[in-house]
Amino acid sequence: MSSRIRVGIAGYGNLGRGVEAALKRTSDMELVGVFTRRDPHKLALQTKGVPVHSMDRIADFVDVVDVLVLCGGSKADLPEQGPALAALFNTVDSFDTHAKVPEYFAAVDAAAKDGKRVAVISVGWDPGLFSINRLYGEAILPEGATYTFWGKGLSQGHSDAIRRIPGVAGAVQYTIPSQQAIEKVRGGSRPVFEVREKHTRDCYVVLAEGADAGAVKKAILTMPDYFADYDTTVNFISSEELARDHAEMPHGGFVIRSGTTGEAYSQIMEFGLKLESNPEFTASVLVAYARAAHRLHQQGSIGAMSVLDIAPGLLSPKSAAELRKELL
Amino acid sequence: MSSRIRVGIAGYGNLGRGVEAALKRTSDMELVGVFTRRDPHKLALQTKGVPVHSMDRIADFVDVVDVLVLCGGSKADLPEQGPALAALFNTVDSFDTHAKVPEYFAAVDAAAKDGKRVAVISVGWDPGLFSINRLYGEAILPEGATYTFWGKGLSQGHSDAIRRIPGVAGAVQYTIPSQQAIEKVRGGSRPVFEVREKHTRDCYVVLAEGADAGAVKKAILTMPDYFADYDTTVNFISSEELARDHAEMPHGGFVIRSGTTGEAYSQIMEFGLKLESNPEFTASVLVAYARAAHRLHQQGSIGAMSVLDIAPGLLSPKSAAELRKELL
Repeated sequence: MSSRIRVGIAGYGNLGRGVEAALKRTSDMELVGVFTRRDPHKLALQTKGVPVHSMDRIADFVDVVDVLVLCGGSKADLPEQGPALAALFNTVDSFDTHAKVPEYFAAVDAAAKDGKRVAVISVGWDPGLFSINRLYGEAILPEGATYTFWGKGLSQGHSDAIRRIPGVAGAVQYTIPSQQAIEKVRGGSRPVFEVREKHTRDCYVVLAEGADAGAVKKAILTMPDYFADYDTTVNFISSEELARDHAEMPHGGFVIRSGTTGEAYSQIMEFGLKLESNPEFTASVLVAYARAAHRLHQQGSIGAMSVLDIAPGLLSPKSAAELRKELL
Repeated sequence: MSSRIRVGIAGYGNLGRGVEAALKRTSDMELVGVFTRRDPHKLALQTKGVPVHSMDRIADFVDVVDVLVLCGGSKADLPEQGPALAALFNTVDSFDTHAKVPEYFAAVDAAAKDGKRVAVISVGWDPGLFSINRLYGEAILPEGATYTFWGKGLSQGHSDAIRRIPGVAGAVQYTIPSQQAIEKVRGGSRPVFEVREKHTRDCYVVLAEGADAGAVKKAILTMPDYFADYDTTVNFISSEELARDHAEMPHGGFVIRSGTTGEAYSQIMEFGLKLESNPEFTASVLVAYARAAHRLHQQGSIGAMSVLDIAPGLLSPKSAAELRKELL
């Protein structure tokens, strides 16, 4: 009988594959099943010997899965799957629609309490590690300002927005933080920025045959919320170039708290990420919190929580005494 | 009747004054007393109306202090005060003798359990926030290496070591991280460093009258552990220069986790501090954890714990729902 934490993956896209890869690097957790809405027979896992099941049959596995990592999207999948699955399993998800967090939390919390399960929502880096650092910053330095910069990185949401424009056959968008703005904040000056001063946006677009480049460019540059408020560059490239040069998913960013203590001392806290693979890093965070979710459930916790509610030590396979000895 | 958290300060040096200053920036906590081993009548607080008491009488105040912040030193004060006071009060301290943490934890834990109190040990930035970041790093990226760099900053321990050399009338020592080493780590290469490659040490020394500069310099450069393994610079200055140019206590540093996910993606997590006042920042961390200690005690926790055992949300005066809405 294994004493390892038995993990299931619900949804096998980039994130699900990242969770599978991250589990391989743990010794206290094991992947016991992948659940998909596609045909299970058509899914080729990286790990041999792990069964793939139809999502329709997931309720049959409540006794063999200790924690289920939900790898669906925040727009269409999680609002439904999150509460439904939290009623059956301990869950961890990466719900990232900031504005809908309270509503999502309430739905998942009610379901998890009904099922006597633990559900950790909005796990990843933003929301997630960045949220934690925003919290440490404002709790420790109550007088101050918090700045979040994203990038350089590929933004899935902005890439999708370009792809929906008629005449676009393919596109990626990179969010690029202003080095000048970051240096100002690091210098302790606490500037108030216009939206366009913090980030620029670089777009790489493949035109559909016969499409009007000028019309596509105009549609991008004037798109409200997504691009109109930013200095945006549009580069037209071939589909070969898109496949060759823009297949990776790097990302990252910085959370900086610039505060004052005593009469006038400047104190700067900064957390930064430089990620070659955004989905694999997010998946690695999910796996660490899956360990915490299982432990919290074993300790008797029930209901929904976020990364802000979870002690750092619960993420590690080591005991509290080992952690004190090695890391304090 | 006030519903604010009533805080006491035990020990009124740089750190105690920092705690007093940090409490002024909170609205949910108040300073209700300072305890000192000096003559209480000779202590001039920054805050009007707060009583100063002799440390000998501290047991009389168990009912009016919700949390006591221990501001004594790790060498002589805390090994005795930590356990003694944790038996009476909820406490927070900045014990930083890394090698003795397990032993100190055990003593404080036993006392706190006896007294049914919560005691948070080793709070500050290293140990403290740096420990938390080392933990997040290795839990999220199990394959990788963690690097800690300190400085540029004034090291109290190294300054004291110089001051104990015969012929030295005054001294400060700055620890300076190697920018080249930091850039190597940020680049993802995971080098193995010799001690002298990570940091250099700059000393500013005032000679006593008639002292032999050459002998003092040699005593510094050859001092084992402290200086012998480092590239060290010794600058002789006047006592006026020492007072004018070296009275501040800046510090800081970086914790960098360089890891790999999947087959070969490099992922870098970095936490950094740039502090104009080391004691005031450490004090600000202590105050945030004092809030957490009080809450944990109210929730029924007893015993010793470290920052690794405490959920981030407990540091903030805001509710879990507010934090989710604002910070996730």
